[in-house]
This record gives sequence, C-alpha cells and structure tokens, in this order.
Amino acid sequence: MTPDLIAAARARLAGHARVTPLLSSPFLDEIAGRRLLVKAECLQHTGSFKYRGARSAISALDPDTRSRGICAASSGNHAQGVALAAREMGVKAVILMPADAPRIKLENTRALGAEVVTYDRATQDRDALMLELEAERGMTLVRPYDDPQVIAGQGTCGLEIAEQAQAMGIDRAEVLVCCGGGGLTSGIAVALSQAAPGYRVRPVEPAGFDDTRRSQLSGQREANDRLSGSLCDAILTPSPGKITFPLIQAHCGPGLVVTDDEAMQAVALAALRLKLVVEPGGAAALAAALFHGGELEGDAVIVTASGGNCDPQLLAQAMGLL
Amino acid sequence: MTPDLIAAARARLAGHARVTPLLSSPFLDEIAGRRLLVKAECLQHTGSFKYRGARSAISALDPDTRSRGICAASSGNHAQGVALAAREMGVKAVILMPADAPRIKLENTRALGAEVVTYDRATQDRDALMLELEAERGMTLVRPYDDPQVIAGQGTCGLEIAEQAQAMGIDRAEVLVCCGGGGLTSGIAVALSQAAPGYRVRPVEPAGFDDTRRSQLSGQREANDRLSGSLCDAILTPSPGKITFPLIQAHCGPGLVVTDDEAMQAVALAALRLKLVVEPGGAAALAAALFHGGELEGDAVIVTASGGNCDPQLLAQAMGLL
Repeated sequence: MTPDLIAAARARLAGHARVTPLLSSPFLDEIAGRRLLVKAECLQHTGSFKYRGARSAISALDPDTRSRGICAASSGNHAQGVALAAREMGVKAVILMPADAPRIKLENTRALGAEVVTYDRATQDRDALMLELEAERGMTLVRPYDDPQVIAGQGTCGLEIAEQAQAMGIDRAEVLVCCGGGGLTSGIAVALSQAAPGYRVRPVEPAGFDDTRRSQLSGQREANDRLSGSLCDAILTPSPGKITFPLIQAHCGPGLVVTDDEAMQAVALAALRLKLVVEPGGAAALAAALFHGGELEGDAVIVTASGGNCDPQLLAQAMGLL
Repeated sequence: MTPDLIAAARARLAGHARVTPLLSSPFLDEIAGRRLLVKAECLQHTGSFKYRGARSAISALDPDTRSRGICAASSGNHAQGVALAAREMGVKAVILMPADAPRIKLENTRALGAEVVTYDRATQDRDALMLELEAERGMTLVRPYDDPQVIAGQGTCGLEIAEQAQAMGIDRAEVLVCCGGGGLTSGIAVALSQAAPGYRVRPVEPAGFDDTRRSQLSGQREANDRLSGSLCDAILTPSPGKITFPLIQAHCGPGLVVTDDEAMQAVALAALRLKLVVEPGGAAALAAALFHGGELEGDAVIVTASGGNCDPQLLAQAMGLL
C-alpha cells in the first residue's frame, strides 16, 4: 500500500468522485480553540466517502473479472457506495444485507441498482453466503476496508485535504479521522505521509468501541467486545483490518475516543454552523476536535465529516440540543 | 449593470468567497422527473449567498470612504454577510436590527464583529435611524439588493453555475432562483445572459408574497400586502428593487410560486438526499423543481439552495415529514 496506488486511484476517480469542500466556521474555531477545517465527505456521492473506495476497487478489476459482477456485504454506507459505483460502470452488483436492516437502507441500495439478497442474522452465516456468491456466480467480493484498492480510493480524500489545506497556508496540522475498520484512516495517512509530511493523522473512535486505539497501544489487533450499542453505528467494526492496522501503526498518532453525547453535539453544531448533515459516526472526529482539544497539538486541526446518512429522527433529536 | 461588473466582482472575491459545489442526487432527479442540480450557497461563508454581495460592495468602495465604515439594516442573512465581509477587510460595521429579532441572530452578528444597534419596530423609524448613521458618522449604507455592486457580487454565483454545469455537459437548463428583492435573481440572470445563453433564470417566491411574479405580469413593480406570515422569511421583501426589477424583466422567464408545505418538504429532502441544511426560503427553488415540474421546460433544472440559516426547531420539524 503505497502513495503510488493512491495516485493511480485518483486518476481513475477523476470526473466521478466529487472533490468535496474543506469548510470552516469562526464559531467552531472558537469552541475548538484553534483553526478547525472540516472535510465534508458527507457531500460525496451516496453521502459518504465509501463511494471512493468502491469505485477505486471496481475500476481496478480487469474487464473479464468485472463482467462477472461484484458482491459486498453491508447494511450501511459501503452498500450504497458499491451499488452506485457498480451501476455507473455497468457492473452487476449483489449486496448481502441483514433482513432486519432499516427499510430505507434496503430501499436505497435497491434504488441504486443493486440486487439485494437478505439473510437472517440469527440463523444464517453471512460469510458462508458470501462465499457461495463468489463460487457459484464468479463474483468478486469488494471488501469494506481490508483491500489495497479500497484503501487507495479512500486515500484520494487525503490528497484533496493536503492540497486544499496547503492552499490555505497550513503546513502543520492534526488530521482527525473517524475510524471503523481503518480504510479511510490508513488511506489518508499514507496519502499525507508523502503529500503533507507536517500533518499527523489520528484515528477517532466511539467510547467502548476503541479497538484501534487499544491496538495501537498493545501493538496487536485488539477486538471489540460487542458490535452494537453506540449511535456511531457507521464506525463499529470487530477490529482493525489486517492490512489497515500496520499502516495505522506506521503512520498515525495516538487515537482519540468520544462519547455518543459528544458525537450528537457535533452533529448539532455541524448543522448549525456548517449547514452539513452528518451522522454521529461521521461526526466523531469533529467531536474530538471540539471537545478534546487538550489532547491535540498545534494551531490547526482538520477533521473528516465522513458520512451524512443520518436517521431523520436522530437529526431532529440533535437539533433539540441547540 | 453589465456582465463586466460581475467579472470585476469575481476578481475581488477570488480567494475570499467560497466556490460552492453544484450537487445532485439520483433520488431527487427521480422526483423532479429530470436532471436536477443544486447550487449549495448554504455552504457560503455565513451560511448564505449574501456574503458575496456584501464583500463585493465593500471592496468596491474607495479607501477613504471605506475607512469611515459601513452600515446596513437587516435582521437576517444580509446582516451576517456584511458583518463578516467588513471584519475581514478591517472596516467598521454598524448593523441596525430590530430589538425583537431572534437572539441568536443578534448574537451571531455581534460575534462576527459588527456593532449592533437595536431599535423598536413599533416606535422607531428604521430608515430615519439609518440616515442618521450615514449623516453623523459618514458611513456608507450597504443595501441588501438594490445596488449594482451587490448585484454584481451575487452574479458571481451565476458565473460558477455556468462553468460547473457546462462542465457536466449541460447546454440548456432552467435556473430557478429563490427571489426576495431580486439581487441574486438579477445577478445570476445577467451573468448567464453572457456566460450561458441557453440557460433561462426563473424567480421562485413563496405563495402570498409573489410580488416579483406579479410585477413580471403587470410590467411594473407590485408590492406585497404584508411582510410576515411565511416560513420563507428570508425572501419576504416589500417589492422588487428599482434596479433589480428591470434586469429581471429583461432576462428572466416567468416566476414560480411554492407553498410553505412544499418548501418544508424541500428542506427535508435536501437534508436526506444532499446532506445540506437549507432554510425554507433557501429551499423555495428546490421545492419548485421537485413539485412544479409541469411548469418547467427541458431536461435539466438548476436551483439555488441560497441559504442555510434554518431555525433548529424548524429543521427538526421538517425531518418529521420524512
């Protein structure tokens, strides 16, 4: 996983992925106590950075492989990113989703042209079903994070951050990234290691689901006890990836942890001050910048607002905090 | 008021105003029944396009005049745009606001560095107070729309629309603009008359406050009966401007009218599908594209999401519609 792979992914994404803006507000600078810039990946196609990695991975397949279609397992942002990227490229996509996933997510994924196959979480083994799809239909699995081409796609976000922030005169910064499996975190970290060596990436996770932070401390991949129970559902994963973790270990500073309450405050402030809809998991990095300034160094902090697929009721609830 | 003035304003705004993105969603295309692009001016500094006109007007003043400061009267988006532009340029700003304006708007305007002078709507004459400021303090009034340099600033939004939409291969389009006094509408219309002659601008107003549409029909400036009573408060004005109306008459197609309910649906859909916070008055054009497609021509429609300073409770209410 090298900067070259990210540069190549960027060339494949050009004209397809949106160059999302790097936003700011003097009101947020004041809360953060330093200059704060927000990379608005919630404005990416399908409402999250996941489209980058999906399009990167699918476009990297040779034509023969691609013609047999791709498959993925996700109940969330990865599903929508894969579905849209596949449709745009004329590639058949099958997405495995739990039958009890929110109806809107099932409908969105179907509306984006994917075939949705549902399974019963209690009685069926998702991985076995996925292997069947691969074996019987010859489809290629697009993993949510542990794939070099997916990581390279997410890394294109890091190249944009470097260019946009350097154009604003920022040579040194902490770059806080909402971290689930680590695809976005490691991709941005590798990109910045070359494009902006004065920037340091730091993963941000929800309290109780800080597998990456604990892995950084112990030096080996640690797992979470559970996989539900935080509003930051978009970034709950079992453990850092086999490919992503060594990259995080090599390139990132210490991880940060935010509570659900802090994430919800950040959702509210993003709406009020940036006019952005961000989901709690996508607001974790902003929450860290706003409420954990004492754990940061330097005059400038850059955060990813990585996803905006927020449940409407949850957004309404966040607005009540203002 | 010529395209040259807009080009000059653009040069003065370069590196200051944000180039806001032109966004889209396949889900909105489907509701609209045609390709729909949204110019996200809610992401402009201070949350609305007003910053463009304010910065254009203040930067056009000669240094002597500027050094005596500027003043403005507004309880809304214009106040914040003027306050920030003035602060950035080191110009003293006094903003006249009704004492009963929402506390958050008073606080925001002060926080952006302006001196806020409040008056009692019932007993004091705003225009007389403004004349006093101009006469006694030698300040220059920055009008909200009826000023060529303000219109030129708003017109820079039109130049961006032309470039961004043409890069997407769009040669013909209806361009729907949320219309109050007509500064944004006329500015975009003049810009497009030269930069994209295949695009036609159409003003969009709230039902019951369609002074511009009625003026277009009668050929003279018509007034609204009242100035409150719509959720689209940001675009309620007494009548089209003396300068803006002839420009609208010369360059725009027929006006459209949307209800408050339609505007609120558009607020909800902008949050759900574009991840943008838009206020009802800033969502009027989107509402027209989504719910009045029968009154539009052609395969492509572009709308301004002109402002995002939405009351949190109102945004929460809109989310309940989904």
